[in-house]
Amino acid sequence: MPALPLTDFSRLCVHTITTRPWSIEEAGERYAAAEVKGITVWRQWLEGRDVAIAGQRLREAGLEIVSLCRGGFFPAEDALGLQQAIDDNLRTIDDAAALGAPLVVLVCGALPGQPLDESRRQIADGIAAVLDHARAADVKLAVEPLHPMYADSRSAVNTMRQANDLCDQLDSPAVGVAVDVYHLWWDPELKTEIERCGRAGRIFAFHVCDWRTPTEDLLNDRDLMGEGCINLPQIRGWVEDNDFDGFIEVEIFSNRYWAMDQDRFLEMIKDAYLRKL
Amino acid sequence: MPALPLTDFSRLCVHTITTRPWSIEEAGERYAAAEVKGITVWRQWLEGRDVAIAGQRLREAGLEIVSLCRGGFFPAEDALGLQQAIDDNLRTIDDAAALGAPLVVLVCGALPGQPLDESRRQIADGIAAVLDHARAADVKLAVEPLHPMYADSRSAVNTMRQANDLCDQLDSPAVGVAVDVYHLWWDPELKTEIERCGRAGRIFAFHVCDWRTPTEDLLNDRDLMGEGCINLPQIRGWVEDNDFDGFIEVEIFSNRYWAMDQDRFLEMIKDAYLRKL
Repeated sequence: MPALPLTDFSRLCVHTITTRPWSIEEAGERYAAAEVKGITVWRQWLEGRDVAIAGQRLREAGLEIVSLCRGGFFPAEDALGLQQAIDDNLRTIDDAAALGAPLVVLVCGALPGQPLDESRRQIADGIAAVLDHARAADVKLAVEPLHPMYADSRSAVNTMRQANDLCDQLDSPAVGVAVDVYHLWWDPELKTEIERCGRAGRIFAFHVCDWRTPTEDLLNDRDLMGEGCINLPQIRGWVEDNDFDGFIEVEIFSNRYWAMDQDRFLEMIKDAYLRKL
Repeated sequence: MPALPLTDFSRLCVHTITTRPWSIEEAGERYAAAEVKGITVWRQWLEGRDVAIAGQRLREAGLEIVSLCRGGFFPAEDALGLQQAIDDNLRTIDDAAALGAPLVVLVCGALPGQPLDESRRQIADGIAAVLDHARAADVKLAVEPLHPMYADSRSAVNTMRQANDLCDQLDSPAVGVAVDVYHLWWDPELKTEIERCGRAGRIFAFHVCDWRTPTEDLLNDRDLMGEGCINLPQIRGWVEDNDFDGFIEVEIFSNRYWAMDQDRFLEMIKDAYLRKL
């Protein structure tokens, strides 16, 4: 059944990329002041910072660090590239541990010149190669299926079914799925594959925004929840009916919203969170 | 296995929208002069024409009319809208018969404000409502699954599996599928669902172009075959291994290519047809 309305902000998490004009320090301060409870940190927000100190400051501000975005991009043209991708993911796991983030979200990767089957094999091999390191660091990995319009260059994993199959193959308690409504809302199998994911205890994250009509940019034209066509209460209901009670993460890439006053945008996010989810 | 290279233009069909600057009369003349054998007519090219005469002229020029694009857009907000959609499809079938096109391609439709399940029911009901008329007119209907990035407003049918399921449900020799590589190339189930479609004798059309990286417009930034990331020989092989030996239809929406000399573009299409498919 559709989810019941949310009545407070105890499960609200915002991604630093949602308020792109703000540095990590500004985001931490403004989110906390706005009663946002969780933060997901995009890796580029840590550039030039001591990661452990950055994490400590966010926690001192009262925020819970939900995840680090993003690892992945495993496919490569040659052995050197594959190894570099693995090394980069090992460093990302180290960063997550230093930051105090329990989860790394994986945008799995794809190469325009390479068959999808091959990229999919490289993704499975790449995750397998970093699994021991993740477990030792007590960091989990969430495969995020990306919308098929990103299959050329961002991810060869494009449906919940594929993500579930990949998790079955890897068969590790450290590997689950990040369910993002933007990527998955259209899929006729979404409900049954969320159920499958939930039964396996693998719903590790839940990302929300909305699909704008017309979408004018493939990357940066996502909409605020309730402004687009995604049936958000229905999908949140499916996720919550299948054992997910974690943070609801607002991840909006949008040239439109980035251009406005970010404090005002954060208020709009909070309002939509209570009224549209 | 990948398809063998094509050695002549006996199966080459071009959609009038591919050479958008040309009227139907110009397209007919130029295609024939260029040894293109088939033409698929987009409905707006018939505006202000006597449809039967337009068809006769294309045949006299030596062209075979492959299909009429497009019917569909069945979903609507109310009973009046649903009936108007059905009436419009009945007229499209009449136009196809008058033109001498054996097939109407269906872009099934979607409404941004309506749950996909509801749109999918309306699509099935809408096709069922025009089936008798199509059979009486000796016109077949091809459901074209559209890329998931069009699920908001153009089609709630987004995978081969859905199209196959819909055909099973309608269970009529007049209803099959138009396989378009642009919409379907990313799908991990594409091979098995093409096999399923072929076993049922339902591969009614095959459309080609390519996926450009980066794609800068959701509608009009398709690429010429061989310039993008789609494994065209592989997909053509799957279609031909499953009993399809019909026209290979070049359908390219592209602001870039429409801006160039269309005779030159047609030569590029022919070259790509022989070398990249």
